[in-house]
Amino acid sequence: MPRYVYYFGDGHADGAGSMKPLLGGKGANLHEMTRIGLPVPPGFTITTEVCSYFYDHKRTYPSQLEAQLAAALARVQESVGKKLGDKEQPLLVSVRSGARDSMPGMMDTILNLGMNDEVVEIIAKKTKNARFAWDSYRRFLQMYGDVVMGVQKRPGEDHEPFESVIEHLKDQRYGKHDFPDVKLTAADLKELVKRFKALIEERTGKSFPQDPKQQLWGAIGAVFGSWMNDRAMVYRRRYGIPHDWGTAVNVQTMVFGNMGETSATGVAFTRDPASGEKVFYGEYLINAQGEDVVAGVRTPHPIADLAKQMPAAHRDLMKVRATLEEHFKDMQDLEFTVEDNHLYILQTRNGKRTGHAAVRIAVDMVGEKLISKKEAVRRIPADSLAHLLAPIFDRQSASNAKKIGSGLAAGPGAASGHVVFSAEEAVARSGKGEKVVLARIETSPEDLRGMIAAEGILTSRGGVSSHAALVARQMGKVCVCGATGIQIDYQKRTLSANGMSLKQGDYISIDGTAGEVFAGEVTTAPSEIIQVLVDRSLNAKKSISYQEYSKLMKWADDFRTLGVRTNADTPEQVITAVAFGAEGIGLCRTEHMFFEGDRIDAMREMILAGTKEERARALAKLLPYQREDFVGIFNALDGLPATIRFLDPPLHEFLPHDHAQQSELANKLGVAVEQISRRVHELHEFNPMLGHRGCRLGIVYPVQRKGIKVHPEIMIPLVGFPRELKLQIDIVRRVAEAIARERETKFNYLVGTMIEIPRAALVADQIARDAEFFSFGTNDLTQTTLGMSRDDSGSFLPTYAELDIIDANPFASIDQKGVGRLMEITRDLGRKTRPDIKLGICGEHGGEPASVKFCHRLGLNYVSCSPSEIRGRGQVWRYRSGASTHHRRDLLFSLPRFHSAE
Amino acid sequence: MPRYVYYFGDGHADGAGSMKPLLGGKGANLHEMTRIGLPVPPGFTITTEVCSYFYDHKRTYPSQLEAQLAAALARVQESVGKKLGDKEQPLLVSVRSGARDSMPGMMDTILNLGMNDEVVEIIAKKTKNARFAWDSYRRFLQMYGDVVMGVQKRPGEDHEPFESVIEHLKDQRYGKHDFPDVKLTAADLKELVKRFKALIEERTGKSFPQDPKQQLWGAIGAVFGSWMNDRAMVYRRRYGIPHDWGTAVNVQTMVFGNMGETSATGVAFTRDPASGEKVFYGEYLINAQGEDVVAGVRTPHPIADLAKQMPAAHRDLMKVRATLEEHFKDMQDLEFTVEDNHLYILQTRNGKRTGHAAVRIAVDMVGEKLISKKEAVRRIPADSLAHLLAPIFDRQSASNAKKIGSGLAAGPGAASGHVVFSAEEAVARSGKGEKVVLARIETSPEDLRGMIAAEGILTSRGGVSSHAALVARQMGKVCVCGATGIQIDYQKRTLSANGMSLKQGDYISIDGTAGEVFAGEVTTAPSEIIQVLVDRSLNAKKSISYQEYSKLMKWADDFRTLGVRTNADTPEQVITAVAFGAEGIGLCRTEHMFFEGDRIDAMREMILAGTKEERARALAKLLPYQREDFVGIFNALDGLPATIRFLDPPLHEFLPHDHAQQSELANKLGVAVEQISRRVHELHEFNPMLGHRGCRLGIVYPVQRKGIKVHPEIMIPLVGFPRELKLQIDIVRRVAEAIARERETKFNYLVGTMIEIPRAALVADQIARDAEFFSFGTNDLTQTTLGMSRDDSGSFLPTYAELDIIDANPFASIDQKGVGRLMEITRDLGRKTRPDIKLGICGEHGGEPASVKFCHRLGLNYVSCSPSEIRGRGQVWRYRSGASTHHRRDLLFSLPRFHSAE
Repeated sequence: MPRYVYYFGDGHADGAGSMKPLLGGKGANLHEMTRIGLPVPPGFTITTEVCSYFYDHKRTYPSQLEAQLAAALARVQESVGKKLGDKEQPLLVSVRSGARDSMPGMMDTILNLGMNDEVVEIIAKKTKNARFAWDSYRRFLQMYGDVVMGVQKRPGEDHEPFESVIEHLKDQRYGKHDFPDVKLTAADLKELVKRFKALIEERTGKSFPQDPKQQLWGAIGAVFGSWMNDRAMVYRRRYGIPHDWGTAVNVQTMVFGNMGETSATGVAFTRDPASGEKVFYGEYLINAQGEDVVAGVRTPHPIADLAKQMPAAHRDLMKVRATLEEHFKDMQDLEFTVEDNHLYILQTRNGKRTGHAAVRIAVDMVGEKLISKKEAVRRIPADSLAHLLAPIFDRQSASNAKKIGSGLAAGPGAASGHVVFSAEEAVARSGKGEKVVLARIETSPEDLRGMIAAEGILTSRGGVSSHAALVARQMGKVCVCGATGIQIDYQKRTLSANGMSLKQGDYISIDGTAGEVFAGEVTTAPSEIIQVLVDRSLNAKKSISYQEYSKLMKWADDFRTLGVRTNADTPEQVITAVAFGAEGIGLCRTEHMFFEGDRIDAMREMILAGTKEERARALAKLLPYQREDFVGIFNALDGLPATIRFLDPPLHEFLPHDHAQQSELANKLGVAVEQISRRVHELHEFNPMLGHRGCRLGIVYPVQRKGIKVHPEIMIPLVGFPRELKLQIDIVRRVAEAIARERETKFNYLVGTMIEIPRAALVADQIARDAEFFSFGTNDLTQTTLGMSRDDSGSFLPTYAELDIIDANPFASIDQKGVGRLMEITRDLGRKTRPDIKLGICGEHGGEPASVKFCHRLGLNYVSCSPSEIRGRGQVWRYRSGASTHHRRDLLFSLPRFHSAE
Repeated sequence: MPRYVYYFGDGHADGAGSMKPLLGGKGANLHEMTRIGLPVPPGFTITTEVCSYFYDHKRTYPSQLEAQLAAALARVQESVGKKLGDKEQPLLVSVRSGARDSMPGMMDTILNLGMNDEVVEIIAKKTKNARFAWDSYRRFLQMYGDVVMGVQKRPGEDHEPFESVIEHLKDQRYGKHDFPDVKLTAADLKELVKRFKALIEERTGKSFPQDPKQQLWGAIGAVFGSWMNDRAMVYRRRYGIPHDWGTAVNVQTMVFGNMGETSATGVAFTRDPASGEKVFYGEYLINAQGEDVVAGVRTPHPIADLAKQMPAAHRDLMKVRATLEEHFKDMQDLEFTVEDNHLYILQTRNGKRTGHAAVRIAVDMVGEKLISKKEAVRRIPADSLAHLLAPIFDRQSASNAKKIGSGLAAGPGAASGHVVFSAEEAVARSGKGEKVVLARIETSPEDLRGMIAAEGILTSRGGVSSHAALVARQMGKVCVCGATGIQIDYQKRTLSANGMSLKQGDYISIDGTAGEVFAGEVTTAPSEIIQVLVDRSLNAKKSISYQEYSKLMKWADDFRTLGVRTNADTPEQVITAVAFGAEGIGLCRTEHMFFEGDRIDAMREMILAGTKEERARALAKLLPYQREDFVGIFNALDGLPATIRFLDPPLHEFLPHDHAQQSELANKLGVAVEQISRRVHELHEFNPMLGHRGCRLGIVYPVQRKGIKVHPEIMIPLVGFPRELKLQIDIVRRVAEAIARERETKFNYLVGTMIEIPRAALVADQIARDAEFFSFGTNDLTQTTLGMSRDDSGSFLPTYAELDIIDANPFASIDQKGVGRLMEITRDLGRKTRPDIKLGICGEHGGEPASVKFCHRLGLNYVSCSPSEIRGRGQVWRYRSGASTHHRRDLLFSLPRFHSAE
């Protein structure tokens, strides 16, 4: 019989930390913490398989679930000596979601379940704290009414209905609707309970269920149901979490941080999640429930204060911190509650962190012998390293700027843009290409799309565990939170601080590394790492971020087996890429040399040539340009190999298409304009196979004569038939031999081909008879394999993503099942014919983390990507879908040297 | 040690008939005939492997060849008691090419090798026939000088140099340059020998080699060299013969048909190669060598005359005929020579024949119990059946036409067009789209391109074994040859006969079935088979061609495993296709129903609809049209299945693109023209996924209600991701269920997808979870797999064919190594998931013979092709390449019912 329910409590757990796919991340860690003796309130986990069953069977449960749940509940009740709905010892439980990967705030949670009209009285009596009992009951009614019974804000309503009831009562009894919650009396709360029940009945036509068992099943259904809510689906698509993983449900005995001044609740990180420094970092609230901390409604105390306020609990917490890091070998993000001076741990998970923190923690933990160097490399999330390379505020410019406030440094980096006060405005403006900074009093999951669209996030309320801080850390956003000196007025759309007032659209700048806010625009400077590698700054070399970066990259270089090259067409690009570790050129597009300045005129002359002699004359003009470029490139490479692709684009791309430009060119070349327009017309659909391509090889010779070693790899594009390649290679070899004879020298070169159309992959064994290397041109290979033009796909790919037809944009990340399958076929067939064939990739996918990993698994020799990807970069993917404009920031950037070692 | 030389003679042969790849067709049959005791002059065969070696090693030979050749030559010399260059018994040999498949006239041949200044005298003495000896010598000098030493017509010269020498001598000695060859005396011929040797020396600077061994090696090199001559390469491309097969070389003792009145030479077919009738059919010349017969210079005697002229030889020949048919079990084309009343057989091969003959011979041989029914089906060449379906002369029209001559019926069928007198003119005019009939006194291999370009061929000289007749039979051309009453004047470009004169460009008509020639245009009528199947003519049903056709097709239906469907969008198309044996519709393109008349307006209204209601209203207008079409189609199908594809083309294809048409449409629909042009613009790059597609399924219901069984197979196009299909199928099932509920009935249907992009092939296992059938859309699959747009490929495919990069046009015949490999992958993956998945093809390749065979080997359930391909049709493929215009007639037509049984 399949096991659907796993019990944990009293040092025993049916599950373990390794069972995340089945129990979810939260559940698995609750089981693990129970096993290692930490104080976890007892409970049980309903598995993710039940969630899958739920959606596969029209939202019903497997028949065995009810009995298994009853048995687990009985064990919990026995363990704590309380029972759901019991007249003497009533049990209250929480019901929480918990997916394999954490999706904070995306799904629903119910606390204080088990409360009803009888139980509230018993708890009031038992705890001698009527206010606590009625507060718990009204919180439960509020959550249950919202989440399970669907009492929510309707179109046209300004406020949540339960909040309106509270404000109305505050107004009635205290004359102001923002009277503090904590000052409400037990009688006030009892009245609220009455009014909440009436509200539920009025809105739903049903009364609130008094039976705790009925409550429990309702809550479980709501949590499973929330797996498919809008927010959660957007989030999963954003982070590439498959919809079919499902969530687990954790039912756990409640403990209370809101039982008075001897109780508290808080969150903590075992190290600083923003900087990575090894300090215990967190915050708490006395007499509160967990939701109060996370929502940022009250600004909490820093964790250090707990030592004074609750010394025993603080001591226990420090022990828990040590145990957790030692056991989980990673920085932990934990939730705790102190109930009447007893410490309970409600959750632990690997803490989200900024890129800076990720690197620092990994490097430090190697020093502390907690993890190996390989583990350190493997642990850095794929896109974290970009944070270290993001621009920082220029010190000079920032010192001149008007500082208007400061807050917590929740997301390092520098952001400057137009200030906006709503997610909608952020999305709308960024859709038009504006840079915006989103300023909110506090953020909630509804703000997610706006946060994605913004360059940076500023909040005036909330601590380091607030929603804003958490999301910023996860997305690598620049963020300053809890800038309490700043007043934000949503109505007027203004922000005022330090005597200054900014209205919507004014420039604002935030420094997420220092936690500072500036009025106006502040210019940025390159990160320290770029200052060292590109500008050779000795000063920046001493910075922590450079020190740690270079350690980590050194380890990455030690472990990786995949080579990293760059796609580069100019000496400047090569210099940058080599500084960042490129080991050669994977794609040098000869045609890129001909688009600039005078060169294009000579190129056009060559194309328009009517006779061999005219063509030779035009070619002679081009030769010095190309020779000069190659001298520069090979100089910069200093012996590293370079793959040189022969002319690829259709010739008509070099010619002007409108009449005015054609006339101008005709004047320049002294020919009739008709001659030019006729040639443009003739070439329109012509796929060029210029016979003289092979001769370019000769250009590399002068470089070698200067004493620089050159290793050219000549690459023929667009091959689909073995003989296409054979004929081209014959020309290359003939020209190479002629030059070698003429100059009485020898030089080594390879000849190979791009694999960019499916047929080439399918006959790779035959092509490998002549090709000494293959380079995957995954841009074109994706277009042909998917039968999808990249330029047109914008009109339906967003819909495809929404409908889960695709996991990721196939033009950004290799379509592993389709295109990747062809790459496997190519590798197998190619190596069958030529076991030592060199395999690389020169499509844009060569710089994307998931694709780099895929190439590593395939066993390629190298990846090649643009110089900016060798450095790491952020990239924005914008698309239109129906009426609304999405704006997705995908961190496509990557450091392939690093990824290839993971 | 590899064996390069195979001996045959005196009833013993190293080789056999089965060794065609190694010994060539001619060689293998010489060995086989020797084995079965036929009178074959001794000789040896140098293998095709030597040819391959020759081209792989810069035209040199393997080192072992010389010794092996010497040994074989020694055996020949011993067998006949003569020696090359011997002073007593000099041996003369022939050196002939012989490829695996016959390539008549394409490669070089040398006869009388071994002749020199001494040998000629000895032979003159021994044979007491000085004229014969000197004639043999001058023939040898002429061939050797041309073929081995390269003495050929130079640019600007009107005549072959050796012919000029002959004409000059005739002029000098007899006062006219067209004095008959046979009347030249021994002294004349001796003088010619002298002048020929002088000519060779003058033109080449080298003297003619007197050493027979040197002659032999020169001739062998020339024959191997001729494998790569222009003519041969054009021919191989035309008939799809790989260049790497190579030719063998046969060296054989000469026998002489020109030793006087007791000698003769001839060719014969064991049955009539034009009609297939079982009569011994051929012709011969007394006192001549083989080349005289084939060249058509003298018009030969019909074979029946031999019984009177040489009764013994005729008797022997009739025995040989019987032996050959019994042994080879096919109609044979043989060459024989009678040397001084002794019969020798110099060659046999399966005879080329017209389509009519192919069918008749195969059907007759089944009756004679020579071959099985299966063998009969297998033996018909892939494109022969089209000949039976080609139009014939309309009897009425022909009886009114002016008959101007008659000749041999060498290629059945009817051709009418402008008369031209040179190959160049034929190519030029047909390049412009004109139909031409090529009229020549006789044809030679130089005329090949003109013959390909022409509708029909007419010659005034030459018999059934002349070059013209042979080529016509092979290519299925209409041909009348040896129309001796017709005078053709190349200079004046006129043709005169029967008192009429036609000049170049005038209309002429030829009936290749009756052997008749008409002035002017004659209309054609459908073939008898079409008269029966389409026009239900009872008269035509009695015709031999219908009788044999229907027998053969019945056998084909018994053997084939592959189903045959048609691509059809209208009831008319379905009716024709079903009459010709289609077993259902493989592709019904719903959009084709919407392009006509009022329908397109309703379609446009639907596309332009701004609201759901407007769209529904437009759809309601379309529904009756579509319903009517489907009623007609299902009626015609009468229970056969139909694959219905959902809307496929981009919506903008339905809208007018120029302003005038847009205005007109705006008026019709009563909307602003801007609305239309905006929508056209919006849709420009839109790939439509209309949500309402599934609803069309409902349309099939009314048909079923009428009592006709319907088996719709709903096909979703362009699927690349499994979930694309899943989502579409969900809609189809939902709509189908709704209709079934509403009408309280059930109907059976399948849902499947086209496989037309490479990704679909690569993930076919996943797609097969939802798809109940796959249909290969090989048009698009070819474009995507090859990364080649069909519309643009015309600019480089001809060059690709010339350079042997491709074997065939991949848009005509499936690219088996590329696209075919994906089809295999699809089959394997699809059947892994769903063992009984139905597999078909609906691309245009489904009607092309080689592709049909490939589909059969793949194990598809059916092929589907256009109604005209179900009938069989000829198709012309025209293309431009550089300066010259090629014009290729590819018999792409096919009878898939037949091919699928082969």
